[in-house]
Amino acid sequence: MPDARFQPLTGFRDFAPQEFALRAYLFGTWRKVAHRYGFVEWEAPTLEATELYLKKSGGELPTQLFRFVDQGERDVTVRPELTASLGRIAAAYQREYTKPLKWFEIGSCFRYEKPQKGRLREFVQFNADILGEAGEGSDAELIALAIDCMREFGFTSDDFVVRVSDREVWLRYAAEHGVPEEKTGDFLAIIDKFERDRPEVCQEKLDAFGMKRADLEAFIQNPPAGCSPRYEAVLEELKARGLADYVKLDLYVVRGLAYYTGLVFEIFDKGHSLRAIAGGGRYNGLVATLSNGAVDMPATGFAMGDAVIAHLIEACPAARALRDAAVKPDACDVCLVLAAAEMRPQMLALASSLRDAGVRVDLPLSPAKMGNQLKRAEKIGATYAVIVGSEYPDLELKNLATRESRKTDIEGLLTELMPEAQA
Amino acid sequence: MPDARFQPLTGFRDFAPQEFALRAYLFGTWRKVAHRYGFVEWEAPTLEATELYLKKSGGELPTQLFRFVDQGERDVTVRPELTASLGRIAAAYQREYTKPLKWFEIGSCFRYEKPQKGRLREFVQFNADILGEAGEGSDAELIALAIDCMREFGFTSDDFVVRVSDREVWLRYAAEHGVPEEKTGDFLAIIDKFERDRPEVCQEKLDAFGMKRADLEAFIQNPPAGCSPRYEAVLEELKARGLADYVKLDLYVVRGLAYYTGLVFEIFDKGHSLRAIAGGGRYNGLVATLSNGAVDMPATGFAMGDAVIAHLIEACPAARALRDAAVKPDACDVCLVLAAAEMRPQMLALASSLRDAGVRVDLPLSPAKMGNQLKRAEKIGATYAVIVGSEYPDLELKNLATRESRKTDIEGLLTELMPEAQA
Repeated sequence: MPDARFQPLTGFRDFAPQEFALRAYLFGTWRKVAHRYGFVEWEAPTLEATELYLKKSGGELPTQLFRFVDQGERDVTVRPELTASLGRIAAAYQREYTKPLKWFEIGSCFRYEKPQKGRLREFVQFNADILGEAGEGSDAELIALAIDCMREFGFTSDDFVVRVSDREVWLRYAAEHGVPEEKTGDFLAIIDKFERDRPEVCQEKLDAFGMKRADLEAFIQNPPAGCSPRYEAVLEELKARGLADYVKLDLYVVRGLAYYTGLVFEIFDKGHSLRAIAGGGRYNGLVATLSNGAVDMPATGFAMGDAVIAHLIEACPAARALRDAAVKPDACDVCLVLAAAEMRPQMLALASSLRDAGVRVDLPLSPAKMGNQLKRAEKIGATYAVIVGSEYPDLELKNLATRESRKTDIEGLLTELMPEAQA
Repeated sequence: MPDARFQPLTGFRDFAPQEFALRAYLFGTWRKVAHRYGFVEWEAPTLEATELYLKKSGGELPTQLFRFVDQGERDVTVRPELTASLGRIAAAYQREYTKPLKWFEIGSCFRYEKPQKGRLREFVQFNADILGEAGEGSDAELIALAIDCMREFGFTSDDFVVRVSDREVWLRYAAEHGVPEEKTGDFLAIIDKFERDRPEVCQEKLDAFGMKRADLEAFIQNPPAGCSPRYEAVLEELKARGLADYVKLDLYVVRGLAYYTGLVFEIFDKGHSLRAIAGGGRYNGLVATLSNGAVDMPATGFAMGDAVIAHLIEACPAARALRDAAVKPDACDVCLVLAAAEMRPQMLALASSLRDAGVRVDLPLSPAKMGNQLKRAEKIGATYAVIVGSEYPDLELKNLATRESRKTDIEGLLTELMPEAQA
């Protein structure tokens, strides 16, 4: 446990090397799967002009900003999410790329919220978006990417579900039930909170529209066949990919933010014990809004946070086993051990030769007893200890896992280690 | 060129995928060399309590902060550098790691400065530090790491030099020339600006100490033999590593910040046309200061920024060639081309099989002409196009570089592509 006297700010995290290794495992998995899907990586500035977020938002976001006036009197915000920057950057660079753009990003976001399990003030999001493509093929491609990230972490359809919904179904429902167009947002907000509000609170809100909660519940539980041709199209695509088992139509989902325009989805653990693992949807008008109408591109995307995933991995034995195999201390391939102080120059030359060949090498930085040197080699997770003594250039190679030792020399060492160096 | 209407804040950068690829090359090179040296990665929060920086600083830093009061009335700062967080985190976690700690970090820092060539308001630093080891072996290990990063980028001793200095030499000089102890900082500040101040300005400052600029210049140009045993020790270590050609003793260097305690160094391009490429040194008292005396660890470290390196690579043909070989668009191994619309489910199944095998695959998300599909395959840098037509499961494999085509099937494709997928 870290010393409690030296903590970061509330809701922020330190990543000492052990914590960093888990982070690198999450990032590496996201990156690997995104690359398999032909997505390319981008990054946004950490600070943006606040107006960029105000243009876009909706929901609680504007109240959760780390927002301030900088030394040049600019109203700036430490980014709470990436979609606003994506819209701006895609508008600026879209002429240089062939459409559709398949872009992903992995980076920190900042929200002033009350920290709790799975919710932090600085957290990392994996964002994947497809811009310049309006068809359901791109919604399916994104949902498949999200599912394959989960599979790569070791989760199966027993562990999570993708709840897919279609805002158009609710817009049509609203229109058919006499909701005035300017009140549509309020109506969607009721659906958004349908599961979380106490029934009487929900009914009270619905009274304004002359609706009964029970009728809505029945509609959600048994949506009319064919109510969402979009969902049917996505399901067909996912079936062909062998991924149909992971999704269901779930009209409880509408997503809080105002800018979503069609299919939306959220991923939850099957026990629904945690916050959403990921969420996203189509936001066709947003790039035009962010570029003041100059660039209009249909778009769809999702974000997956690091905190909820980390908890879920901990709770799932198969995912935990994969993680533990990946997140192990292995600071180096070879730890050099100096058995004769006068051989230090030779040891340093050997270190340089090995490192130039790509081998990861640690060495004693000051005189130390052999026992202590060997102890360090084990603690930092070295694969081998190589003992440099007065018999140099003869060396002793010690496998720290099997404890076997044998004589070798520089040539032999390089031959032995090159496969490791390549890995 | 990006559309100028959609810019980030002054001094901040957008990384569209092409710009990101360069960034990934820099980060990947730093990471690779740091791993070879047995360093492990860590990361700090992006925001810290402002007092952490005020405790530590000196120099201009306190005037350059992105500092504000958050919604919880905390005085917070978007991190201007990493050493303060490192000291705090090392103090918190040091009991869990075997000493010395060899830690590196790659991340954004933020300073409110006037943007110019090689200087930005959000920039990335590669930080490498060794904590818990006081000997010159650790200074040499860090300088060797910095040199090997430069070599890995393709630079030689014709391109850059590591200017190593020793604050102790100046402290002794000051004591021997009657500088009162409380004025030592002022004296070091004069040396720090020696090269940049006009001679008469420098002399005016030196008048306060009754010193002649010419005497100091002579001392710097011909430092007395043996004036820095520390430098001699580091030079011996670097000689044994074959890296002596990259360094020189250079007493012009003292580093601005107050907390350095011994050897300090800066890396410059040989033409000295740019700001420092890297800088660092020993800061033995800082961890104790940051932990209010609770944890005392000797420490040495350096930081290398991304902006100056990027300019220097551009100016050096060998480095540029390495960069251009690494930074190429290659969004995928295979771009699937659908020649018969009714084969879409088969194409999607094929995509899933290939992706599950680790192959990077792009595919048409909506109906498109074959010519346009092939054009996209080339533009995104795919290695192969695989044409899925009515002869499925027979496929056509087209090498987009050689333009050769041949018939294959799924088995053949997987065999063909698996080596690529492993890479």
